[in-house]
This record gives sequence, structure tokens and C-alpha cells, in this order.
Amino acid sequence: MDRDDPLRYPRQRFQIPQGLLYLDGNSLGALPKSTPNDVMQTITKDWGERLIGSWNDAGWVNLPATVAAKLAPLLGVQAGEVVIADSTSVNLFKLLSGVLLADSKRNGTTRRWILSERDNFPTDLYIAEGVLSLFGDRYALKLVAREDIGASIDDSVAVALITHVDYRTGHLHDMRALCQRADVCGVELIWDLSHSAGAVPLDLAGDGANYAVGCGYKYLNGGPGAPGYAYVRQTRQATLPAPLSGWFGHAAPFAFLPAYQPAPDIRRLLCGTPSVLAMIALGSGIDTFDGVSMIELRKKSLALSDLFWQLVDQRCAGMGLRCVSPVDHATRASQLSFAHPAAFAVMQALISRGVIGDFRQPNLMRFGFTPLYTRFTDCWDAIDVLEDVLRSEVWRQPRFSEKKQVP
Amino acid sequence: MDRDDPLRYPRQRFQIPQGLLYLDGNSLGALPKSTPNDVMQTITKDWGERLIGSWNDAGWVNLPATVAAKLAPLLGVQAGEVVIADSTSVNLFKLLSGVLLADSKRNGTTRRWILSERDNFPTDLYIAEGVLSLFGDRYALKLVAREDIGASIDDSVAVALITHVDYRTGHLHDMRALCQRADVCGVELIWDLSHSAGAVPLDLAGDGANYAVGCGYKYLNGGPGAPGYAYVRQTRQATLPAPLSGWFGHAAPFAFLPAYQPAPDIRRLLCGTPSVLAMIALGSGIDTFDGVSMIELRKKSLALSDLFWQLVDQRCAGMGLRCVSPVDHATRASQLSFAHPAAFAVMQALISRGVIGDFRQPNLMRFGFTPLYTRFTDCWDAIDVLEDVLRSEVWRQPRFSEKKQVP
Repeated sequence: MDRDDPLRYPRQRFQIPQGLLYLDGNSLGALPKSTPNDVMQTITKDWGERLIGSWNDAGWVNLPATVAAKLAPLLGVQAGEVVIADSTSVNLFKLLSGVLLADSKRNGTTRRWILSERDNFPTDLYIAEGVLSLFGDRYALKLVAREDIGASIDDSVAVALITHVDYRTGHLHDMRALCQRADVCGVELIWDLSHSAGAVPLDLAGDGANYAVGCGYKYLNGGPGAPGYAYVRQTRQATLPAPLSGWFGHAAPFAFLPAYQPAPDIRRLLCGTPSVLAMIALGSGIDTFDGVSMIELRKKSLALSDLFWQLVDQRCAGMGLRCVSPVDHATRASQLSFAHPAAFAVMQALISRGVIGDFRQPNLMRFGFTPLYTRFTDCWDAIDVLEDVLRSEVWRQPRFSEKKQVP
Repeated sequence: MDRDDPLRYPRQRFQIPQGLLYLDGNSLGALPKSTPNDVMQTITKDWGERLIGSWNDAGWVNLPATVAAKLAPLLGVQAGEVVIADSTSVNLFKLLSGVLLADSKRNGTTRRWILSERDNFPTDLYIAEGVLSLFGDRYALKLVAREDIGASIDDSVAVALITHVDYRTGHLHDMRALCQRADVCGVELIWDLSHSAGAVPLDLAGDGANYAVGCGYKYLNGGPGAPGYAYVRQTRQATLPAPLSGWFGHAAPFAFLPAYQPAPDIRRLLCGTPSVLAMIALGSGIDTFDGVSMIELRKKSLALSDLFWQLVDQRCAGMGLRCVSPVDHATRASQLSFAHPAAFAVMQALISRGVIGDFRQPNLMRFGFTPLYTRFTDCWDAIDVLEDVLRSEVWRQPRFSEKKQVP
């Protein structure tokens, strides 16, 4: 399968440690080979030699736009519809507070809810709580089960905050159907694409999405804590309030005018001065997708997870594993999660043997498939170890139960 | 003077380009020699080889605290009172919205104003506008002249937002006096330390300051767009609302609990996942202060600006320069600004000759003195060029008037 894989070549773009079976690119993407040079050039040449002049000469001032332009095709949007900035959480705050601020000023609006999924990625719900605290009792959070989110979109909802891919199970929502439903009900919909961009083909424009945020350090390979991004459809940009109104979002950032005037376009989603080193590294990360067909990538992603699942069924039957990810290709993203009563300890034992997945509360082991560098043989080799760990019950050793905090 | 300078040695910690007279460290600090290695180690070893495990093994998860611990002595606060996070603008949003949220919930409060300086650094005022937009008509912005800020603190003010060092003139406020006045009037006071930390000795604890934010890429040498920081006095931390409530500010960030519960301490000022590369570079930048006495640094800073000013008076008299910085040492920070009718063109001509200062609206040339690496001979050499540029009127060449956007 590896020999015939048309996406075999991008693995050469990464620095993958010898002997490691890395199935956690959904949490932190591997290091692209070009990143060290790109960052070092920025540090030693642009910063070290040309100093302040590099804001113009090296194009630092435009990085939020130029790196976004690399990302745009992966989202299925135009370059001027997305911007790199801050963290996913901060970007979500911007969109959510902006959308609610606009709603609160509409004449006669009675919409009351921020609608979201009960099992959404926690920071999304935390940010929703933070935004709500600034609106007094005007709005409240309504949480429903993931499968009920579509049916819960109605005209009592001001904004729905939906995560495209569930971080626990890898379940993938039908973006187009939910956008249509939101559109019919006049509900604003903000997508969190953290676990989808770079993992599944996206067509935000075609699917009718108006707002989205996402993460740069997972499938986009931007490095630990890479900046996030924010998407706003072109037609919505000029009217979206921007309460996180820092100088980089100003219409004339370096005129030092006393009053805030938001940029007329997507730049109003910028706030403070962006980290140049972080932006450069994210650019290198996104470059690993150069020339890669997302259709091919999707095919390989599903082939990898199909193989892994099939091998678990064949080799680990009766050993306590239960897959909680969707069987159906249409609703499966690029990871598989298995429940196991001792998931934490089993995962620690796997990690100690060089098979890197991760644990998620309460009892899940996650394995991510990153088609740019995961090989089919990696699945075989990982299952060898998994089978052995389960069969030998080595995970019962106390050292594998010591809990650590892991993002 | 350089020979007898007890702070001659830290210059060896920086990569200063040959032939450049860099007097803009107040805008972007020079590159510390240790930064490339520190960042490269993080990229190639911690990220490249140990991947996700480095969140714990390499201490990434604690960087907002460990880098803050390096900064704390420069602010005159305890390690647990400051945190590295996001940008200055975002941090200001956190403190300002948190303080106003607390005020709005106090019984019977009638305080109405965010008080600030008319000529404050623009992003501070922009952020204030953004925060205000979320509180409807409850609060409003009151802007006064910098010299009137103390007298304007009264019991109609909810929060005063004061920049310690004026970015245009280098004027330095009396922190202790303003804190006392605020305390007497029950006014919360947020300091912006962007142009003071690392440039003048600070004693936030002793002076009675409760809240502050600041910038990592100026005198702290953290690199372009380095993260900012936020300080909250220990006694205020547990009750400060945190509307930018991302997962890194949660009491148990990686327990993935559905409801937000702010960390009991300064960590509640964290929001999303921090950029590890940016944090590491900022740590290297702050390390350049190792063993440096801020008293010595202050002495040298004033000696540098005294010398520069004296040379301008002697060598450039009658050529249109007028110093707008304070004569008095007690109110002068670590820069000098000169008004000139053609300030932009003159500065461009200086830059073309390797003397790097910067231009600020409407007619100011700024020269920053960074005692860790600025030499007394740099002042002499820069004045040689300045005198020649003014005397020859080379700045009248059209190429020096082409405006560019520079942060």
C-alpha cells in the first residue's frame, strides 16, 4: 500500500524521529524539514541584521495576510477571507462577541441562545461563557448533544458554535446541511475547524459557511502553540463589529490616530502585534501541503483508518477495545478513538514503546492519521505493539498510571 | 566613558550588525546571541524529536510562568504575580474588561469613566473603545492631557489606563503618586509598561500598582511580535473576572471539564495555547538582563541621553531640532525625541546612513537608548551623521520623503 501510495512523497518534507510511530499529528503536527531554516533566517538575517527595517523589507507586517493566503485553499475560501492571528480561543472570542454585538443592536431581536454541543472542545465553551459574562443576562448558553445540534437550530438561537470534527470521536458534521439550516433560521454559525483543516477537504465558500476559526499546530504543522486563524465571508466583513480592537486591526495601523476605525476588510480581525517567529513557522507548516490534492489526501486518510480499525478487529478482539469513531466514511474525519477501561495506562504503555497516540477523558485512546507522513506500515507496526501491550497486560505496571497534564 | 562603563559587558550578549548605530531598541530590541540556539534547540530537539511529549518533558506547559519568573524582578513583583501571554493589546483587553465587569457588579456603583491620556499609545485607546462597546452606554472614555491625568482621577472614574512612559516624548509618570491618588479615590489603575520595563527600574509592589500590561519586543529583546505580559497583584487575583476565558486559564486545563472555572491565581489571565517558539525567544531576551543592576542601568541610560542631548545642542544648534523630552531626570525615561519640520525625511536620511531611530507622527524623530548595548561612542557617531545630514540638507532628496508603514 505504501509503494502504490500517490501521497508517499510528502513524508520527505518532515523530520520524523527514527523508530517513532507518531499517531498524534492531530494534536501536534510533526516538524517540517524547512521550518528550522525558515525560522533561523528570520532570526539571524531579518531580525539580527536588518532589525526594525524588516517589518517592511522582510514583509513581516503582511504575514497575517501572506500566511493566510497559503491557508485559504485548504479551507476553500479566497485569500482575503482569512487571517492568521492570536490563538484559536482569542479568535473565537472575536467572532462570538462580534456576532452577538451585532445581534444585540438589531431592532426587535429576541434571539436568546448561544447554541453549542455539550461535548464541544472545552475552550470553545469556556470562551462562550466569557463572552456571555459581558452581555449580562441578555444571552445564555444552550448545550445539546452533538447529534441534536441541527434540530436545535431555530429562531431562538442568536449564534451556533459548532465544531466540525469532534476531538474525542473524530465525528465529522455535514457542513453544508447545517449551514443551510442556519441560513433558513437566520442563525449565525461559527465553525471551529481545529481538527478538520488539513485533514479533510473543506469548501467553506461552497457550503455556505460565514464564520470559522481554527488551530495552526495540529494538521497544519505550525509548531507548538502556533497562531490560529479566523475566516469571515467577504460579504460579512465590513459590518462585523470587532471588540478586540487592537492597532493591527485599524484601517491605518501606523498613522497612530486616536480613534479606532476598523479596517474595512478581514484585517479588522487582527488585534495586537503578531509573533513573527510563530507566523513564519506556521507558513512553513502549511507549505507541506504544496501540490497535495486534498481529494487524494482524504482517500489516503480513510484508507489508513480503515486499515487500522480492521487490524484492531483482527488482532485485538476480546481485549477490551471498543471503537467510538464513525464507521461511515461520510462522517469520519482523520482519527480513530477506542474506549478501554484502562485507556490511560494502555496509552502510557504504548508511548513507552514508541507508539504515540493520546488519552482523552474519560476512557479514550486517540490515534490520528496524518496522510502527509503516516504510512500504512506505521499502522501495522503500531498494532503489533498494541496487541502485545494488551496481551501481556504490561499496562498494569503502576508506572503507567501516573497522571500528567498533557494538552 | 565606554571604558569606565560598568555595563559595558552585556553588549557582548547581542548580535549587533557591524556599522549600524541602532537607536531603536525602544521599538524592537536587538537580537541576543543566545536566541538562535535556544529557539533551534526547541524546534529540532523538543519539537522535532520528542514532539507532543515536550509539553511536559521540556516544560512547555509552564512557559507562561517560568518566563514570567525571569521578568518579575524587572517589574519589582513576585514571580506568581505576572504571566506571559498573548499580545499587549489582548492582555489590556483582559484586565480592562475584567476590572469593568467587577465594577459593574458592585452594588450602587455610579462610576462612569475609563480615564486615559489623549496621546496614549493608540492601541490602548482602541482596546478601551472595544471594551466599551461591550458594555453599551454603561461606561465612556474620558481623555485628558497627560499632565492632567493625576488631577482627573476622582470618584467618577471606574478605571484609569495610564502609560508609564509616553512613547512620543519619553516622559515618565510618577507611579507611586498616581497609585496613591487612585487608591484614595477607589479607582482601579492599569499601567502600560511597554516603554518602561527593562528601561527604567520598576517597583510595582512598592509603588502600590495593582494591574499592568506590557510588551516583550522592545527593551526586553524578545523578538518581533514577542508575547506581552500581564501583572495582577496577588491579593487581587482570585476575584478578578476573566472574560477571555480560554482553556489555559482554567483551574484544571487538561481535565477537559465542560464548565469554565478560572484558575485561582495569575494563570486565569492565560487564554489559548501560547506560542512556544515565541515564549522561548522572549525568555532568551529577558536573560540578557542576568546580573544587571537596574540602578546601574538607569544611571547609564540617563548618561547616554544626557550626552546625546548635549551633543545635539553643541553640534546641531540652529538647524531646526527641538527636544520634546523632559529635561528633568526624574521624568525622563530612556529615549529622546526631537521635533523637526521635516522629521520623516531627516530620519529616512539617517537610516540610509546606518543611524537607526524612528519617526513618529506628526514631526518627531525618536532615539532610544538601550544601556545593555548602546555605547557612548554610538551617541558621538550618530551625532556626526545627524549633523552632516542636517548641514548638507541631503534629506531634501525626494527619495527620503516616500512614506512607508512602520510599526
